[in-house]
Amino acid sequence: MDVLKERIRRDGVIKADDILKVDGFLNHQVDTVLIDAIGLEFARRFAACPINKVLTIEASGIAIGYAVGQHLGVPVVFAKKAQSINLEGDVYTTRVESFTHKRIFDVIISKKYVSPNDHVLIVDDFLANGCALDGLIAMTEEAGATIEGVGIVIEKGFQQGGRSLRERNYRLESLAIIESMDPVSGQIVYR
Amino acid sequence: MDVLKERIRRDGVIKADDILKVDGFLNHQVDTVLIDAIGLEFARRFAACPINKVLTIEASGIAIGYAVGQHLGVPVVFAKKAQSINLEGDVYTTRVESFTHKRIFDVIISKKYVSPNDHVLIVDDFLANGCALDGLIAMTEEAGATIEGVGIVIEKGFQQGGRSLRERNYRLESLAIIESMDPVSGQIVYR
Repeated sequence: MDVLKERIRRDGVIKADDILKVDGFLNHQVDTVLIDAIGLEFARRFAACPINKVLTIEASGIAIGYAVGQHLGVPVVFAKKAQSINLEGDVYTTRVESFTHKRIFDVIISKKYVSPNDHVLIVDDFLANGCALDGLIAMTEEAGATIEGVGIVIEKGFQQGGRSLRERNYRLESLAIIESMDPVSGQIVYR
Repeated sequence: MDVLKERIRRDGVIKADDILKVDGFLNHQVDTVLIDAIGLEFARRFAACPINKVLTIEASGIAIGYAVGQHLGVPVVFAKKAQSINLEGDVYTTRVESFTHKRIFDVIISKKYVSPNDHVLIVDDFLANGCALDGLIAMTEEAGATIEGVGIVIEKGFQQGGRSLRERNYRLESLAIIESMDPVSGQIVYR
């Protein structure tokens, strides 16, 4: 998706060989025009799939999930990272190790909102080692729902998450795949 | 906002005198059609204000903030609840005590994304005791930005957050104000 790749080049900040900051338009300040275009692009790529629900994970996935859900005309479920007194009851749970936050946290989805009749599109902002996605996939499959595909805004092609998903035959659509990035020159090479 | 009030009556679950679950359409599973209508309604109510940025707090505020930002044609900034290695640098910080989670957490906004030139609309899903909103207001005012108003989806009128904001002369628009709710009968009385 060219407009996204150009925006990453313009406003992304490479903090290290493997850390890219896009908090100016994607995951702290959110450019609603760009995110809407991203939602439309995912809806276009998965238009032939009988998706009735979008699944993502808080917090950075929510705006993207919402935009996709809006264009597909379906609800969005966002997995939660901590138990709340308002979310008791039957939940699917998994443990996720965050690449960004360097810590492990519990993720939950209420059983009410993913069921065997659901055809789910899973979306997230980043795909690095794939731990968060593996957790979402595990909970969706535990629920007996069908995974129609996975939509990622920025895949770090030099980490193993994308390869692992493709090897397991999930349909993965990444709007920008970064092959390499250089914190000194600021250069980004896309696949 | 009648469609919201009816939806709360239909799908909301009153867990106690002061706890209302709306995770079926607002803050776990998100009804994208309803949230879009909510975004449009806030945009209509604040149409005369020179808003150039929407501010909210992760995670439940993000879909609402995005919808409002989309209708106003402005970006959304969501305050973050924990320090990330991707968010180092100059940040505004505040401490917030969550009514829902019964705990205290740190909230941050990067100084890059709120500045004295900004005219900010602050939005959130719930207003109870107002701690989260007070934190967002404090950071916005520390940044020297102008607060054009506060938009709340569900105000618990029997807790002090709304009264406190109105007494301090903030323009507060709550789409549904609950005067009382009864966990036994399930009855909700709106203001």
